[in-house]
Amino acid sequence: MAVNTNIKSMKPDEVRAIIRKGRWDKPTTGIALGYAQANLVILPKKYAFDFFLFCQRNPRPCPVLEVLEPGDFQPDFLASEADVRMDAPRYNIYVKGTLKASVTSVEEFWRKDFVTFFLGCSLSFEEAMIRSGIPIRHIEEEKNVPMYVTNIQCRRSGIFHGPMVVTMRPILPTKVVKAVQITSRYASVHGGPIHIGDPKTIGIRNLETPDFGDSVTIKKGEVPVFWACGVTPQAAAMAVKPDICITHAPGHMFITDILNEELATT
Amino acid sequence: MAVNTNIKSMKPDEVRAIIRKGRWDKPTTGIALGYAQANLVILPKKYAFDFFLFCQRNPRPCPVLEVLEPGDFQPDFLASEADVRMDAPRYNIYVKGTLKASVTSVEEFWRKDFVTFFLGCSLSFEEAMIRSGIPIRHIEEEKNVPMYVTNIQCRRSGIFHGPMVVTMRPILPTKVVKAVQITSRYASVHGGPIHIGDPKTIGIRNLETPDFGDSVTIKKGEVPVFWACGVTPQAAAMAVKPDICITHAPGHMFITDILNEELATT
Repeated sequence: MAVNTNIKSMKPDEVRAIIRKGRWDKPTTGIALGYAQANLVILPKKYAFDFFLFCQRNPRPCPVLEVLEPGDFQPDFLASEADVRMDAPRYNIYVKGTLKASVTSVEEFWRKDFVTFFLGCSLSFEEAMIRSGIPIRHIEEEKNVPMYVTNIQCRRSGIFHGPMVVTMRPILPTKVVKAVQITSRYASVHGGPIHIGDPKTIGIRNLETPDFGDSVTIKKGEVPVFWACGVTPQAAAMAVKPDICITHAPGHMFITDILNEELATT
Repeated sequence: MAVNTNIKSMKPDEVRAIIRKGRWDKPTTGIALGYAQANLVILPKKYAFDFFLFCQRNPRPCPVLEVLEPGDFQPDFLASEADVRMDAPRYNIYVKGTLKASVTSVEEFWRKDFVTFFLGCSLSFEEAMIRSGIPIRHIEEEKNVPMYVTNIQCRRSGIFHGPMVVTMRPILPTKVVKAVQITSRYASVHGGPIHIGDPKTIGIRNLETPDFGDSVTIKKGEVPVFWACGVTPQAAAMAVKPDICITHAPGHMFITDILNEELATT
């Protein structure tokens, strides 16, 4: 299909138009390369202040890129002419914390009290690591990144609380410093690592059995390096069993007009 | 008075204890050197989400350091054992946008729906500039920093809107790059400059007549450099004439336990 071959090099607005027409409902990895992709969390207004505060208090796992006013579905900063109700390839709708539907548009479910949160995604700094000669194992092995629930508790906010979830990337000792330096520049997309080395220190018993995603090969001598993960706020949101919560489906991200490089500090 | 001579080198918790006892109601410049001082904006809950969003959308003038839950008066992150109702040396109470009282404690006015915002302050990066050999003119001349209303409109959020207010520091051309580099490290306290050079570009007609603060000497060859200012969110909050709004009195800041250096990026 023509869409398949071209979409990777398209501009964000072109990709969003294709997604909106229902012609792309697959994961967005590798699409519109160079542009930031965002996690979505959509909640009724009554939860919005507490959730906003949860993100502000836990900026590493919950880097806020943009928040819309109640009912708004058009971002102002992250993308122009976008519609958050239909521009992600796939959405999950949770009712009282349980997945009720997986859909390609949430237009028919939209409510005037919905508040949309766009959160940063580690795809942004992975691109920078690869450009600097640091291979990313789960990309090499064409897997999902391994994710683990840690013993690090997030700072509570109102009804929202929970442990920090982290991603793990095995890095050669000679590249660890560089990996810290590069990712530290991306504070708005999780920033530098949370932990380097012994997984037990942060409550992870077995790297081979991640809580989410896939396990990846750790080669002899490689060091496991852990970064805060955007699953953290989603898990915290689910844990309180809100009446309704809409998120993007895993991997089916909202593609922004913002270059990854724009998210980096100097 | 013994307090006067010792307070500059005291730890933040010791200074706050003295302030709480009513033994210090003067400006906090130069006190507990090395520790970050914060701007305070206290609003009823009904304004809190929109104001929070205004700050998130305008991070340069409105860098959020901490937000408390409704009714809470004890910060969790910025300081331990602190009480926001009495630990700033002086507060201004505004009713419908008009200054009604200037007091040393707001305990008797406290309401269960008050939400406290702590915002970063440029004192943090001024200390770093001085350490790097960049003199700060208004400190040399023992004046308040000159502040100007610009033609740069902040991004609107709900009822909150307004122009960006900036501070100006004259810098030698040979030091301008260094000044950008140093302040850019302090993203949580206004970050790098908004503008370097011609004030007219940002709508400032006359540097000698600042809108707030004092005018300072600009020596031959010096370049005016402009940074976003924490007066911006206060002005935006006043403009909507909320039922009640409490701020610190200008210069009478809340002293935190956080080292300025902790607010800097690597």
